Amino acid sequence: MKNVKHAKCVRCGRIYAAAPDLTSCACGGILDIVYDYDYIRSTFTKDDLAQRRDSTMWRFRELLPVEEDTPLPPLRVGGSPLYEADALAQELGLAKLYIKDDGINPTASLKDRASAMAVAKAREAGAQVIACSSTGNAASSLAGNAAAAGLSTYIFVPSRAPKGKVAQLMTFGATVVSVQGSYEDTFELSRAAIEKWGWYNRNAAINPYLSEGKKTVGLEIMEQLNWAAPDYIAVSVGDGCTIAGLWKGLKDLHAIGFIDRLPRLISVQAEGCCPLNRAIETGEDWRPMEENTLADSIAVGVPRNADKALMAIRESDGLTVNVSDQEIMAAQKLLGRRCGVFGEPAGVTGTAGLKKLCQAGRIPSDAVVVSVVTGSGLKDVANAIAACGEPISIPGDMALLEAAFRQAGIRA
Amino acid sequence: MKNVKHAKCVRCGRIYAAAPDLTSCACGGILDIVYDYDYIRSTFTKDDLAQRRDSTMWRFRELLPVEEDTPLPPLRVGGSPLYEADALAQELGLAKLYIKDDGINPTASLKDRASAMAVAKAREAGAQVIACSSTGNAASSLAGNAAAAGLSTYIFVPSRAPKGKVAQLMTFGATVVSVQGSYEDTFELSRAAIEKWGWYNRNAAINPYLSEGKKTVGLEIMEQLNWAAPDYIAVSVGDGCTIAGLWKGLKDLHAIGFIDRLPRLISVQAEGCCPLNRAIETGEDWRPMEENTLADSIAVGVPRNADKALMAIRESDGLTVNVSDQEIMAAQKLLGRRCGVFGEPAGVTGTAGLKKLCQAGRIPSDAVVVSVVTGSGLKDVANAIAACGEPISIPGDMALLEAAFRQAGIRA
Repeated sequence: MKNVKHAKCVRCGRIYAAAPDLTSCACGGILDIVYDYDYIRSTFTKDDLAQRRDSTMWRFRELLPVEEDTPLPPLRVGGSPLYEADALAQELGLAKLYIKDDGINPTASLKDRASAMAVAKAREAGAQVIACSSTGNAASSLAGNAAAAGLSTYIFVPSRAPKGKVAQLMTFGATVVSVQGSYEDTFELSRAAIEKWGWYNRNAAINPYLSEGKKTVGLEIMEQLNWAAPDYIAVSVGDGCTIAGLWKGLKDLHAIGFIDRLPRLISVQAEGCCPLNRAIETGEDWRPMEENTLADSIAVGVPRNADKALMAIRESDGLTVNVSDQEIMAAQKLLGRRCGVFGEPAGVTGTAGLKKLCQAGRIPSDAVVVSVVTGSGLKDVANAIAACGEPISIPGDMALLEAAFRQAGIRA
Repeated sequence: MKNVKHAKCVRCGRIYAAAPDLTSCACGGILDIVYDYDYIRSTFTKDDLAQRRDSTMWRFRELLPVEEDTPLPPLRVGGSPLYEADALAQELGLAKLYIKDDGINPTASLKDRASAMAVAKAREAGAQVIACSSTGNAASSLAGNAAAAGLSTYIFVPSRAPKGKVAQLMTFGATVVSVQGSYEDTFELSRAAIEKWGWYNRNAAINPYLSEGKKTVGLEIMEQLNWAAPDYIAVSVGDGCTIAGLWKGLKDLHAIGFIDRLPRLISVQAEGCCPLNRAIETGEDWRPMEENTLADSIAVGVPRNADKALMAIRESDGLTVNVSDQEIMAAQKLLGRRCGVFGEPAGVTGTAGLKKLCQAGRIPSDAVVVSVVTGSGLKDVANAIAACGEPISIPGDMALLEAAFRQAGIRA
């Protein structure tokens, strides 16, 4: 990889050669992939990119840590739409708002970006089996991307994972272990099993290549905005890998001169599980929390990528905000009604936080903001139905329909 | 619309001016949009298309019945991936197989193509409210596409509609009427309500523009195959609109000289509800059937687009095949395991039929085949879980994991 120098521990600074099966540093710190930006600058231009027909995450190959001859994974990951959300912007009192809908990825979440990278790197490592623990989306995306590539998967999920995600896993033919316990218990069991059986490790954070996949969401947003950086990007935060990846992408583009300023990040967590935001707000070290939110994908009491995530929020002069489950479900409806975008609870949490900040007057009204929706609402329909209520239910009769409309106060 | 001549009844041949709010012919027949292919030939080339950056269904605007100044609906519909499914081809004994995954559309089904068209035409008609009856996908796609465009919707679904589809509808803010009865009962109630309140009619078949939206799936397939027509295209059939639309797209391309031959269609229905295939197989008129299949989207006992669908199958010298629910669910697993594509039951029915024909030796082994997956499996996770079984469920303990693996015969 001519574009990659090495991997470096974010905690102790130790350097590692960029082997495809890297995990964490001996000190326990998370590794970061370090690029040769001078080399990339000399070989990669905006015009190159504009000519490319490939609309997937792999259009940014010069900024990705894969060998030149590595076969790309089969599923079409990335290239998600960035919608101009004028009606919602008006409602929130913002000059301009864009919604990045990453729920349209092949397995319906942003995690496909990391899983596609995991499949590419597993192939480089000659692995036939990949394993991970996950709150659900990383799991289903790994299972789908690996199945398409002919690789086997062992997947560990907490027993609370919503049915949609479990259905995906089973259909993709993964061996699925549902762990009766927290995400932390799930993670620890996967760690022990991976160590015992030597599977390729797709655990986010532990595998430093994964946030390099996730960063493509940031690369895409900037290209879709024609390299005019917005003022803020709002995103939900659980394990910390997504916000860290997003930030890495933005910094890459800044380093190679594709953008001339960096947006501020808005880190949104659930009130019931906000260890990273609490650390930022108190200035203290992060401490574990209960996993007390229905936004299952970000219910992570022991975030595995705390170091990189906290660094991203701080470096960007970011904002933090925590939202209740009620605020999350209100944001789900808002995105549905104003934008036609149906996100899962964790997927809309970024928008919930943005709304809360706008209402508190913490975002200037002339700001340009991007809010990332990280997964599809179809992953978890039980919560959506609980929030929206049931439809009118009647036999097929016009008199009954008119009566039902009258009763519901609907004036057709 | 310089590219459109008029609409013509497929039954009596009566001609109508192409007004945006056309419904059926006075004789009860379905209307078909008739294009001026000479004009289109003179203004539209493959090179034009190759230059376009728009990857949505609207890249084929010269072949679509919209005014030049009609604003396009906001959601990014179409441009779905066509995967080379080599592993699955090998398993089925086919030279080449492609899977068109239309489940990645914004509301996760092919119906988005028709609903985006409905929104465009409703705006031309000056309508603020759109209504439809649907087995579920047309409903959720209309609700999403209309919400993004700021239009209101009234939606009628049979009470059997899966929860995922209902959750979408409610989140998109539609007024939803769940009809305790068959799809036929649902359709009839919607017809009466539309007549009474004067809403824009998005009922497939009745509104002749909708299959013009659906035909873009065929246009895309051909462009993705670089205009080399496959031997067969397999698709599931319910109301008949999708197969009719697909065929219309193929014929359009043939008429303007973009392809030099037409594929044969493979019409796949559920054994428990196959009125159209039965008509083809017996040579008699179609007759209503019970709606006895778990593939809810194609459980249509009284198909509304029978005329166009039967014409499409016959004109293409098409094949018919009916599959059991068990065969449908086996195809769902097969697509998941071999391709990383998770389709809903009706979405994978085309592939189930293809597999059955291959096993029966009815498809030559040197054939090139496309199978269309029409909707995402996340729409209906209950059936997927019932088919795949539950995961291994244990507390977070290595000894228990090893015991569970031993018991399940898994050799990690």
